[in-house]
Amino acid sequence: MTALPSAIDGTDVAPGYASLSPDDFKSAFRQHPAGVSVITADAGQGPVGLTATSVFSVSAEPPLLVFSVSSLSSSAPTIVAADTVVVHLLGSEQLHIAKLCATSGIDRFADTSIWDRLPSGEPYFTGDGVWIRGRIVNRMEAGTSTVIAVHALESSVSAPAAPAAQPAPAEPTAPAAPSFTPSFDGAPLVYHNRTWHRLDANSQIDG
Amino acid sequence: MTALPSAIDGTDVAPGYASLSPDDFKSAFRQHPAGVSVITADAGQGPVGLTATSVFSVSAEPPLLVFSVSSLSSSAPTIVAADTVVVHLLGSEQLHIAKLCATSGIDRFADTSIWDRLPSGEPYFTGDGVWIRGRIVNRMEAGTSTVIAVHALESSVSAPAAPAAQPAPAEPTAPAAPSFTPSFDGAPLVYHNRTWHRLDANSQIDG
Repeated sequence: MTALPSAIDGTDVAPGYASLSPDDFKSAFRQHPAGVSVITADAGQGPVGLTATSVFSVSAEPPLLVFSVSSLSSSAPTIVAADTVVVHLLGSEQLHIAKLCATSGIDRFADTSIWDRLPSGEPYFTGDGVWIRGRIVNRMEAGTSTVIAVHALESSVSAPAAPAAQPAPAEPTAPAAPSFTPSFDGAPLVYHNRTWHRLDANSQIDG
Repeated sequence: MTALPSAIDGTDVAPGYASLSPDDFKSAFRQHPAGVSVITADAGQGPVGLTATSVFSVSAEPPLLVFSVSSLSSSAPTIVAADTVVVHLLGSEQLHIAKLCATSGIDRFADTSIWDRLPSGEPYFTGDGVWIRGRIVNRMEAGTSTVIAVHALESSVSAPAAPAAQPAPAEPTAPAAPSFTPSFDGAPLVYHNRTWHRLDANSQIDG
């Protein structure tokens, strides 16, 4: 594929095209729900946390995800500058974390009982839930936001190491496939048109 | 911001970093729900339609959205080559469209009663629902997928033209602000861990 510019600002719309108005664009996207994530990072100036509805998986091999961060966000400079981030895919019982990291003008890390640092240094919210630690491998400017691509390095649902109690095989054998044990299987949190939703058997519809 | 490469393939992970396994990556993202979209296009070889859970809004001014398309999809070559696309943000009563465009080996446009072409030529699914027509303004390769940025040009919820029945003003006046009239206000469709969900008052949780 031809190399393309890494930034777009909308000025390259061809003459004669009328852009959709911001109000109509927002109205259309009110119909579009999204899973809720919180992204944490520390680029050396202290921890930041950002609630985002823009996380998606783009590739499993290599494992890559993408999200966007608005330049209006107070966390944006840290997240854009960071080498690594932690992306939390929130369950509905983590609504308080979603709200915390969507509230302006507060210290989102004041309550030290709800967060910690990974051995690699990144801040993250403890407790049940799925997170992925990854390295930022690309950035694309898009209007007032930056789209960030992340290579996943580890997760809270990574296959655990073989249990210590398991007897060593008498002879060398091919390593057993790790048995996957999810650390969390709760109802996910969804945001839609300024309301929060919980997905469970009641929201499911038949195929 | 420094210009960055427009393609990443995971090979630029620094030595010493262990990449998350594809299975663990997929397991983590099973926790992550998403609104369901269908993207249609025709690059001159006939209409294609693709069900996607990767659409998000990145900027309202200019109005920009992003989605990804897997190179494994039969629709990928057309969508990557197209100048313009139509992004449908599906309601739960459009589940049949989501399934249609997620099924391999069929002619997704065989039923001519459910689709038409816009005046600008793009194929789209008619009926209730929100769609946005836009021009592709950037592409970023990411592993086995391409992340595509789209500048929104018009939508099915665009403010309508003034009704013809309205009497013309006696004297020239400043144009009235268009009164926004959404064409659709249904319950959105969400995909999660191989199941379909409907968001409504029953799924809503308190803030």
